[in-house]
Amino acid sequence: MASQVDAAELTKSLIQCASVTPDEGGALTLLEALLSEAGFECTRADRGEVSNLFARWGARGANKSFGFNGHTDVVPVGDEAAWSVPPFGAVEKDGMIWGRGATDMKSGVAAFAAAAIEFVQDTPPDGAVILTITGDEEGDAVDGTTALLEHMQKAGERMDVCLVGEPTCPNEMGEMMKIGRRGSMTAWFTVTGVQGHSAYPHRANNPLSAMVRLMDSLASAELDQGTEHFDASTLAVVTIDTGNGATNVIPAQSRACVNIRFNDSHTGASLTAWLEGEAAKVRDAFGVGIDMKVKISGESFITPPGALSALVAKSVEAVTGRRPEMSTTGGTSDARFVKDHCPVVEFGLVGKTMHQVDERVETAQIHELKAIYKRILSDYFAG
Amino acid sequence: MASQVDAAELTKSLIQCASVTPDEGGALTLLEALLSEAGFECTRADRGEVSNLFARWGARGANKSFGFNGHTDVVPVGDEAAWSVPPFGAVEKDGMIWGRGATDMKSGVAAFAAAAIEFVQDTPPDGAVILTITGDEEGDAVDGTTALLEHMQKAGERMDVCLVGEPTCPNEMGEMMKIGRRGSMTAWFTVTGVQGHSAYPHRANNPLSAMVRLMDSLASAELDQGTEHFDASTLAVVTIDTGNGATNVIPAQSRACVNIRFNDSHTGASLTAWLEGEAAKVRDAFGVGIDMKVKISGESFITPPGALSALVAKSVEAVTGRRPEMSTTGGTSDARFVKDHCPVVEFGLVGKTMHQVDERVETAQIHELKAIYKRILSDYFAG
Repeated sequence: MASQVDAAELTKSLIQCASVTPDEGGALTLLEALLSEAGFECTRADRGEVSNLFARWGARGANKSFGFNGHTDVVPVGDEAAWSVPPFGAVEKDGMIWGRGATDMKSGVAAFAAAAIEFVQDTPPDGAVILTITGDEEGDAVDGTTALLEHMQKAGERMDVCLVGEPTCPNEMGEMMKIGRRGSMTAWFTVTGVQGHSAYPHRANNPLSAMVRLMDSLASAELDQGTEHFDASTLAVVTIDTGNGATNVIPAQSRACVNIRFNDSHTGASLTAWLEGEAAKVRDAFGVGIDMKVKISGESFITPPGALSALVAKSVEAVTGRRPEMSTTGGTSDARFVKDHCPVVEFGLVGKTMHQVDERVETAQIHELKAIYKRILSDYFAG
Repeated sequence: MASQVDAAELTKSLIQCASVTPDEGGALTLLEALLSEAGFECTRADRGEVSNLFARWGARGANKSFGFNGHTDVVPVGDEAAWSVPPFGAVEKDGMIWGRGATDMKSGVAAFAAAAIEFVQDTPPDGAVILTITGDEEGDAVDGTTALLEHMQKAGERMDVCLVGEPTCPNEMGEMMKIGRRGSMTAWFTVTGVQGHSAYPHRANNPLSAMVRLMDSLASAELDQGTEHFDASTLAVVTIDTGNGATNVIPAQSRACVNIRFNDSHTGASLTAWLEGEAAKVRDAFGVGIDMKVKISGESFITPPGALSALVAKSVEAVTGRRPEMSTTGGTSDARFVKDHCPVVEFGLVGKTMHQVDERVETAQIHELKAIYKRILSDYFAG
């Protein structure tokens, strides 16, 4: 029996659900109904304000299980007046579907849901197909995929491998997949000196002299030169603020924040120790106080090139004619949580307009993405 | 005929005039009446919102003329609730007179007015004694002593030498006089790069990387090692502000401000050229835009040790037993305007509490200061 789910139409239906984090907006309810009807066993793994959907076709504990991960929540529309279409209107024009979430990532979710439904119905595999879809990826991400994975652990559910359907292609469909991500951390510094009059700097201790030395040492440091699968780590000073409006006053304090994206030659802990060392040098040299607070958003991770990435690459090439680069660039995604559960890679369409006004996706790319996902499933269970 | 003017009582009367810049508050009116009655020819050289008083005893164009300069305006009281006395109450307790302007510098004005009146009445000199008293020293100082000096030029009035009665002693009466001041200038920098995502710093150009390099180069530069009469020049970074609240965003722009106090080995123009050079180096190295605005508040100036400073030092030592150090430290004063008219030095009492809550002055110091000023007049016209 050949069933058909139009992934572009499903994308439009999902866009019409105003699911700005943490509002579910009807998106997960819609998917739950669709998947249940198609024979998937659906469980809501909601936590706090967040809605999450777990769906499995096939038996729990099946021999082989292939998982997809994605999210239906979207970032706010921003300045709605700047949009040329209603952001939740799912207008289709110029060969594209327009609206918030069109690329990030309702099209991806629609494509893997459609692919999974058609696959299990057309060629029922000897195994399980699992969909983990969260409503909290764009927000704090503490009650989202993490909650889904905790639910799975408790319920004895397992994915052998997982594909995250985030947009991964910079410009052309099929050119890039992600096999890992750099880690991300943020450090906030408060440098405290002794306030005084600009005319008598020797009676004060200017925290800004120490601050600029510390920030220059951090900003100009070469953290590494890249590793086998990763670009070089980067550090950006994102803000320095003092708020001193008086030109004849040396301020008592200044604050700064740096953000680090790091590869597998570092950990959050090793970088924290490095930052502490740099701060200590400046503290000793300038006699100031330096307070540092660190938040590690995610460690770097990698699923080294192997069976899963080869499978995905082959399927992408079969459908698009392009062999995707195995990249570890970009920001974080929920793959950082999935990687503790099973091997994980990411592949999706072109994400150029994600988070922007007039976010939109080529309709043809959605169909192509669905075809790729179907091919991946088919090859995985055939293998 | 021995007349008597109690400088402490006059200080109290002046404190009771709430003469926060640019309000005259009755202070100059009071002095004008007192001086006129004592035989001084008084002229108001008011300009704009500002009141200024010119007073001369003796003939215009006399052979020798000794001038005093001072101001009756005061800075605001700040948090009035934090004062332990009414700020304009002129309370006398614990051997001190309390109130805004007690040290800066109604006591100084009272002391030289009282000294001048007693001197010309007791021992009328062969020459002129001139008092130039402004109501705009604490404010913009554009309609104050400058207006008085312009008035004098137009009216054919001249001081051969001038003593500014600002507080000059750090701790003990008589320990310091000022023979010059460092220059003061402020520069505002705006560094503009290219905004971007912290995860992709190579697609952005972080203005903060350039900003901290520039500020570190400025803050750590040794401008000079001091000159014969001056301490080393100093530069203080007084603020850096960016206002970027998003840790995943590299900002487009950051702003900073530096304040320089410089000696006679520099000019505002030479330092401006140096700042431009440092900014250009960083601009070229980082490919950012750097906008710089400069305000030169005053050039450095000096009345090299000579007859005037020797005269003042001798008189101070005769009265206090201390030989005053000839210093060029501290902020600016109206001496920076007077120096274009005639040799100028500054001597006054201890200024510890100037601009602070509970500003106060030792009553005995006022009497001592008046005695010193009388001695200076006497020695000057005897010489």
